[in-house]
Amino acid sequence: MSEILDSSKTRLFVDAELGAGLSIGVSPSQAHYLSQVLRLKSGDKVALFNGRDGEWIAGVDGAGRGWCSLSVEIQSRRQLAEPDLWLVFAPIKRARIDFVAQKATELGVSRIQPVMTRYTQVNRVNTDRLAANAIEAAEQCGRLTVPAVEDPLALDQLMAGWPTERRILLCDERGDAPGAREALAEKSGAPWAVVIGPEGGFHPDEREKLRRLPQSTAVSLGPRILRADTAVVSALSIWQALVGDWR
Amino acid sequence: MSEILDSSKTRLFVDAELGAGLSIGVSPSQAHYLSQVLRLKSGDKVALFNGRDGEWIAGVDGAGRGWCSLSVEIQSRRQLAEPDLWLVFAPIKRARIDFVAQKATELGVSRIQPVMTRYTQVNRVNTDRLAANAIEAAEQCGRLTVPAVEDPLALDQLMAGWPTERRILLCDERGDAPGAREALAEKSGAPWAVVIGPEGGFHPDEREKLRRLPQSTAVSLGPRILRADTAVVSALSIWQALVGDWR
Repeated sequence: MSEILDSSKTRLFVDAELGAGLSIGVSPSQAHYLSQVLRLKSGDKVALFNGRDGEWIAGVDGAGRGWCSLSVEIQSRRQLAEPDLWLVFAPIKRARIDFVAQKATELGVSRIQPVMTRYTQVNRVNTDRLAANAIEAAEQCGRLTVPAVEDPLALDQLMAGWPTERRILLCDERGDAPGAREALAEKSGAPWAVVIGPEGGFHPDEREKLRRLPQSTAVSLGPRILRADTAVVSALSIWQALVGDWR
Repeated sequence: MSEILDSSKTRLFVDAELGAGLSIGVSPSQAHYLSQVLRLKSGDKVALFNGRDGEWIAGVDGAGRGWCSLSVEIQSRRQLAEPDLWLVFAPIKRARIDFVAQKATELGVSRIQPVMTRYTQVNRVNTDRLAANAIEAAEQCGRLTVPAVEDPLALDQLMAGWPTERRILLCDERGDAPGAREALAEKSGAPWAVVIGPEGGFHPDEREKLRRLPQSTAVSLGPRILRADTAVVSALSIWQALVGDWR
């Protein structure tokens, strides 16, 4: 199996159903990538995943301008359960928000939920671009799924509909939250969300509301001021190491 | 004290000694930033730190083309001990290496040590640019020091002179290393280094040598393939949460 995998380092996320013997087409941009950028020829292999059917090795059948047809051959990895972890974050500016989508995907987030808070400086979020970043990162990091990218919600709206069973890891810039080892000592990998405020932090009222939620566990990310994008990577890493699938 | 601090969000790293009543000049680029970009006037305040004397509030005395003179007034923060944590990492390409220097600084690293490994793709490291990135990040994140940026060393050379007492957190892409909670359970905040390989990972011989060092603790960063810059932020965050000053 490892030989098959090594021979196909190219991984593509597709919509189509995957199974032995199926023939599938890819999007025009994927076709361009396969035939013009990678210059794959008939018989060359790629790996495909769709978030449902595991990872499959497929061979190139033929390609032309804007199309490429592939034959699905053999399953290289079975679909596995992945952490049920949302990232809720206040959007930031262009390069850094792309970065957040990429890193959250690498770090195993299942859903990316932008949230508008009082100190959020950014009014519009290009969720299509975030989704494209998430797909590319999922292809590169070996995931079998792509996180869902949701439309932005106001913080109040999000909190009003918050699922009872979903815990919140709240990264609190105030110095009085405990460290992660203590705060997450007895926690399980049940549904969670990591919640990160905007560059200026949450408004005191927002922070108070969030901390009072019964689902909420506040942790400190130390004495230095982290940029919002750093806080995202730090908090997700700590969650994975202490509660998630890095254990 | 907090009023004084709030009135001066501009923080500058300087070489000069800092103490009440001292008058100091800043570099031409800092002078340009203060007088042309921020348009500070006589009497406006900034915060200064030099890595030794804590943080001081200083008032602008005067400024002209390429110079700015400041009077040091009152100490706003005392110099505190910071974690003794090195980051040893295989250099990566331009934007991502800048990012590593910035994030390592925010995450409290005391020394940034590029290391050349067999699979390292980058031959030259612009340590001046790394140092400039580290200074800017230190100014923004509220640190009282700037990490030392060292010239690159070959991995063998680095290992040959490795200090006996400095522990190594080795981020191992092989699946057989334990998770961080287990691996770092009984560890203290004594001198440490986080060691991160290049995008392709360490050569098996290199990994074996590193794992065999008595100072070495290997940890897993989970089942997904992390980019080298993500691994840097993840590993430093986990170290800070479990061993460092985020506890």
